[in-house]
Amino acid sequence: MPNLLILASNADEYTRPIESAHLQDLQITPEPADCDIVLGEPKLIRDALPLLSSVKWVQAIYAGVESLMDPALRRDYVLTNARGVFGELMSEYVFGYLLFHEKKILERIRAQESKEWHRPESGVLRGKTIGLLGVGSIGAHLASTAKHFGMSVRGFTRASESCSDVDVYYHDPDILKFVEGLDYLVCVLPRTQDTNKIVDANLLNALPAHAIFINVGRGNAVDESALVNALDEGQIAAAVLDVFTEEPLPKEHPFWTTSNLLMTFHTSAISYPENITKLFVENYHLYMNGKSLKYQVDFERGY
Amino acid sequence: MPNLLILASNADEYTRPIESAHLQDLQITPEPADCDIVLGEPKLIRDALPLLSSVKWVQAIYAGVESLMDPALRRDYVLTNARGVFGELMSEYVFGYLLFHEKKILERIRAQESKEWHRPESGVLRGKTIGLLGVGSIGAHLASTAKHFGMSVRGFTRASESCSDVDVYYHDPDILKFVEGLDYLVCVLPRTQDTNKIVDANLLNALPAHAIFINVGRGNAVDESALVNALDEGQIAAAVLDVFTEEPLPKEHPFWTTSNLLMTFHTSAISYPENITKLFVENYHLYMNGKSLKYQVDFERGY
Repeated sequence: MPNLLILASNADEYTRPIESAHLQDLQITPEPADCDIVLGEPKLIRDALPLLSSVKWVQAIYAGVESLMDPALRRDYVLTNARGVFGELMSEYVFGYLLFHEKKILERIRAQESKEWHRPESGVLRGKTIGLLGVGSIGAHLASTAKHFGMSVRGFTRASESCSDVDVYYHDPDILKFVEGLDYLVCVLPRTQDTNKIVDANLLNALPAHAIFINVGRGNAVDESALVNALDEGQIAAAVLDVFTEEPLPKEHPFWTTSNLLMTFHTSAISYPENITKLFVENYHLYMNGKSLKYQVDFERGY
Repeated sequence: MPNLLILASNADEYTRPIESAHLQDLQITPEPADCDIVLGEPKLIRDALPLLSSVKWVQAIYAGVESLMDPALRRDYVLTNARGVFGELMSEYVFGYLLFHEKKILERIRAQESKEWHRPESGVLRGKTIGLLGVGSIGAHLASTAKHFGMSVRGFTRASESCSDVDVYYHDPDILKFVEGLDYLVCVLPRTQDTNKIVDANLLNALPAHAIFINVGRGNAVDESALVNALDEGQIAAAVLDVFTEEPLPKEHPFWTTSNLLMTFHTSAISYPENITKLFVENYHLYMNGKSLKYQVDFERGY
């Protein structure tokens, strides 16, 4: 009879739907030492790891699990993360901001405020080229939306070429070829050692001056001072950031006053308990049948 | 040997691509009296109609052809309008504004300006219901984008039910049933006698308080003072208007200061000469072969 521990600041929101799923044999326990299964936030789980003496499976409620990747931490359990649930949200966010820029929505609001019948020409997504840094389940969803809007799609991945909505794949060391001529560059990379400052001065300088950069992956992927410089110098047209090296963003960070930079604060895709619960239920059945779980994290790769 | 007259403020932008299409036997003429075919803006064509003594076919470069619908005007020619080219642009506009609202982009810009790590909860398109007032080629494209984003789609039409992306169709007199419970109402209706003030106080009052109304059709479809009232009273949450009863919008119009109203100025879909030229070339071949032309306007229906 497996015992489940829920470790989340909004644990209640998970308890109810899991209870009402009536999962065979599952007991929810408040005791770390008793649990076989943990569902929760990676940071809370990391802190509790020493107490989880009999844990066999951890289901993270986020996509990002870097808190559990420290080589000094235990790895004697199966870790699964949340995937397949954020692509749609990320897609709404990314294309919302691209359309916000192309349709000159802010400029039109200002015109309205000054009572001007002002008609700046809009840009269009159709025919543009988007480059995806990372093509996992989120990148694949972005690619499908880009295709819906009639765009060309490039993907930069470690090796995989599995998404049919990507027109051309690039891999190391061709990252500068990958960004050449892009209209939009979107980073959806996880935090790993290989992704540190992958968006650096060289890469930003290789983008066209009209390019828009969006980061919805992790803050570590960006050389932040190089980005400030690229925006100040007009090497790229605009950036939209949802993630930062340090969160919350420190008050003295230059990003606050960098022009053509829009920021949101780690909200591009939030975890909805109903989505995560569905995923948990699916994995629970696999677990009980001794099968391989969905969305297992590879501790070596880090995602 | 057919003679073509081009009547557009940007006629040059049409002359070059049409010349380079090398259409068999076609001559471009500056003389209204000589022309068999006219390509251009409905208003300019209306003014020139008395001079177009031998015209057989008029290709409008816009979708809206109400300038040519006055029953006092000649109807002894075939009129075709521009369709199939605006759906993609309208879709970018409509979903750009819906995402702008749902993602609280303006609120986030203000938070950034005041250096606040502010995380208002975003809305999502997925699962929402959009109602399309009019499901021609533009409405059909909006429906396909709504489906891409996981939405439910209702369509209100005179009689047709031909778009498979519409989940449920409504017709007169069921317009209040059509709007009941909608999250978004988008009007793409042409200007005809039947569409005058179809969006009136009753209809606005039947929408949920969180609903967003977008008009990218024609201004005549909206009872403008009822809309001001609905926004002032919070009967609906927001409106986005690209078209107005009088354009440019008069300086003293209450819309300029109505809250939760965003306006753009008849720019949601502009005519790109390359798109219109493609359509013209296609119709020219049909014309020369004595076949029925694409996108013929029915003078009685008005579209």
